[in-house]
Amino acid sequence: MKDKIPYKTYLSEDEIPTQWYNVRADMKNKPAPLLNPGTLKPLSLEEMNPVFCEELNRMELDNDTKWFDIPQDVLDFYKMFRPSPLTRAYFLERALGTPAHIYYKFEGNNTSGSHKLNSAIAQAYCAKKQGLKGVTTETGAGQWGTALSMACAFLGLDCKVYMVKCSYEQKPFRREVMRTYGANVTPSPSDTTEIGRQILAEHPGTTGSLGCAISEAVEVAIKTPGYRYVLGSVLNQVLIHQTIIGLEVQKALQKIGEKADIIIGCAGGGSNLGGLATPFIGEMLRGEANYRIIAVEPASCPSFTRGKFAYDYCDTGRICPLAKMYTLGSQFIPSASHAGGLRFHGMSPILSQLYHDGLFEARAVEQTSVFEAAELFARTEGILPAPESSHAIRTTIDEALKCKESGESKNIILGLTGTGYFDLKAYEQYNNKTMSDFLPTEEDLAASFAKLPVIK
Amino acid sequence: MKDKIPYKTYLSEDEIPTQWYNVRADMKNKPAPLLNPGTLKPLSLEEMNPVFCEELNRMELDNDTKWFDIPQDVLDFYKMFRPSPLTRAYFLERALGTPAHIYYKFEGNNTSGSHKLNSAIAQAYCAKKQGLKGVTTETGAGQWGTALSMACAFLGLDCKVYMVKCSYEQKPFRREVMRTYGANVTPSPSDTTEIGRQILAEHPGTTGSLGCAISEAVEVAIKTPGYRYVLGSVLNQVLIHQTIIGLEVQKALQKIGEKADIIIGCAGGGSNLGGLATPFIGEMLRGEANYRIIAVEPASCPSFTRGKFAYDYCDTGRICPLAKMYTLGSQFIPSASHAGGLRFHGMSPILSQLYHDGLFEARAVEQTSVFEAAELFARTEGILPAPESSHAIRTTIDEALKCKESGESKNIILGLTGTGYFDLKAYEQYNNKTMSDFLPTEEDLAASFAKLPVIK
Repeated sequence: MKDKIPYKTYLSEDEIPTQWYNVRADMKNKPAPLLNPGTLKPLSLEEMNPVFCEELNRMELDNDTKWFDIPQDVLDFYKMFRPSPLTRAYFLERALGTPAHIYYKFEGNNTSGSHKLNSAIAQAYCAKKQGLKGVTTETGAGQWGTALSMACAFLGLDCKVYMVKCSYEQKPFRREVMRTYGANVTPSPSDTTEIGRQILAEHPGTTGSLGCAISEAVEVAIKTPGYRYVLGSVLNQVLIHQTIIGLEVQKALQKIGEKADIIIGCAGGGSNLGGLATPFIGEMLRGEANYRIIAVEPASCPSFTRGKFAYDYCDTGRICPLAKMYTLGSQFIPSASHAGGLRFHGMSPILSQLYHDGLFEARAVEQTSVFEAAELFARTEGILPAPESSHAIRTTIDEALKCKESGESKNIILGLTGTGYFDLKAYEQYNNKTMSDFLPTEEDLAASFAKLPVIK
Repeated sequence: MKDKIPYKTYLSEDEIPTQWYNVRADMKNKPAPLLNPGTLKPLSLEEMNPVFCEELNRMELDNDTKWFDIPQDVLDFYKMFRPSPLTRAYFLERALGTPAHIYYKFEGNNTSGSHKLNSAIAQAYCAKKQGLKGVTTETGAGQWGTALSMACAFLGLDCKVYMVKCSYEQKPFRREVMRTYGANVTPSPSDTTEIGRQILAEHPGTTGSLGCAISEAVEVAIKTPGYRYVLGSVLNQVLIHQTIIGLEVQKALQKIGEKADIIIGCAGGGSNLGGLATPFIGEMLRGEANYRIIAVEPASCPSFTRGKFAYDYCDTGRICPLAKMYTLGSQFIPSASHAGGLRFHGMSPILSQLYHDGLFEARAVEQTSVFEAAELFARTEGILPAPESSHAIRTTIDEALKCKESGESKNIILGLTGTGYFDLKAYEQYNNKTMSDFLPTEEDLAASFAKLPVIK
């Protein structure tokens, strides 16, 4: 514990970044545009405006503006839970006996328990500014729904959350947090929408899916005057909002006079990894620095490491736009895993293009080894991590052990997206040694790839 | 949001206090000594050593030493979650339209979700230093058990937790957090102890009580070589460890050039209120300052406001020492309430003496009004508070509204002990409008007082 670097580095409030970063402005190869699922032509602002908030759509389509001012009201809200600390993991380093210096950026110090609040307040703010009455969304694991509920409660917006039915039943506590923040939480599929009634008629007793919940939320947004639909990952706008994470890391490193060598983040739809890493990738694109950046995904849902870079639907129901991305196929159903936030078949188009261009590497890890890492982290660093975040912890430990072998004291930056307080069913399974790993076979993937749409 | 005071004030790591404060050194009227339940004579160090850790016993009996050095290893551990921020509740103030300035000291930013970790690591450290193999304890709501599990995992000590059976069954998530930290969690009453087997034989199907869990934990500590029993509240030593809270508040106020007018904390056994308030009470005792300090307790378990100041047993089973304290009687069973941490029939002897001497006031509040305050706090300040902490929030709001009437901009300091992430059954009841209030009748209390021991 004798070192010049403090355990936690906090920025002062006036050091919180006042602009979000848009990596597309620095990308030579821009991500491919979203396509209208009906026409298969690039989506226009006019087509997007009835579904999504206008200002957010402009941000979504903007490949050129490098910096977006963070509105003062959003900055004020950020001060509730930001700046988040950049913590030196002295105790984990000691337990590993590694010469590496591990730093983690902890985004879980708020009631949503994750980084999702960074974008939720930005999106809710735009909805409010547009004069809307409310927003709709879907939630699986529940972190996004909770974050959006908190943001809406703060701004006095109505919030309708369609929660995948099995999650609604298995995670009543998540549901109650959202209700405490005034959200209207409906188990999906429900009889409140046409598509829901249709699915219920065809599959009575279904426990729902994210694809179905998306369809219901979109239908309600379109049909209810004064409502729009919002989404917590994948989209370009979400990555922009989440850059507050990486920008704060950069400032904190500057403050302690250190430089990152390796940056590690978990990747589901890309909101966390994009937010953490794109400010660093920007430096690489501009030729200012070089980093090793590692995306960590579950072996049960390995979009980067085993997926195809192709146009695909963003939802199982094929009613949402198509994106060019690393995908396992929109009909791919990942095996049950406890990292609900990482079970999306596709990946952010921005990150997909950057990965395709070789700006970072990716690694798939198995859930039992992920929980082993989570346990060690909890016992040494005191924070019970979310299953999603623990994927990045697994790889951080692996890299730190490689440093032990080579004797190198690299600076590793770990994105710790959130806490596991609502994931204790998973920990129970791990504690009882009844957790296992299910990986897709080559046949599974081939069958799914065969259903990819053919786009000219 | 335009004010010179930042939203959050953090001390730097080298500003964390390095000593704990013992208010007894400044008290003219010392708290009465604990009595041996067999002899009814003051407990000696020799009688305490087989049950509790030696260094902690010396602290327990020490009425004179004003400052205790915090061991370096404990200070290092504190850096995982301390300093905790002193937050200006700008958004709550705005919602109330009050000229009062509300500050809250948030102790929930750690996996135990409460202030309990401040004392857990101090006690575990002493056990380790004494060369013990492990410690035993009981837990009801689970915050103390979780905190102790975390501290023991960190130091490599074994931790045996007796968890009240109904809580073990109703709060499986709390149980799993403790197991993840390597603790051995047993539902109480159990067949692992003599007293447990006896209770099970007499009351088959009982769901347990804190009194019974204490008895089991003490029995195991006495009978197992290398084990001692530790406790998370009531004791003098616990109040000393918890003064890190109040001492940090004092430093943070100094840093922003402000002075407290009113200090508000919830009180169950006294660990939080004692830790928050005794550094300020010390200033009052030394004639250096004057504050209004308010202890807030549940109307269902009103030790200060309706109890007697008398010698009483600390446990229902009457095997533990007697303390002179404000008590509702050791045979008093408070009605089911969701603030499990505030359901103790007695109160810290130090706080009891200070209250008796008029150093602070007390107020009892009803749980429905407490959850109303919790909901407003969550929606404005973003943190879902623990039911215990929400008692203090209730009174803070009431005082802030009085300031609105009088036009005074007083500085109110609120002790926000923890988060409600594991208390969502309670929030669910509140959200469903099925929560009610049960207050003890005069007859209930009279019957309980009639069973108080008669001590000469």
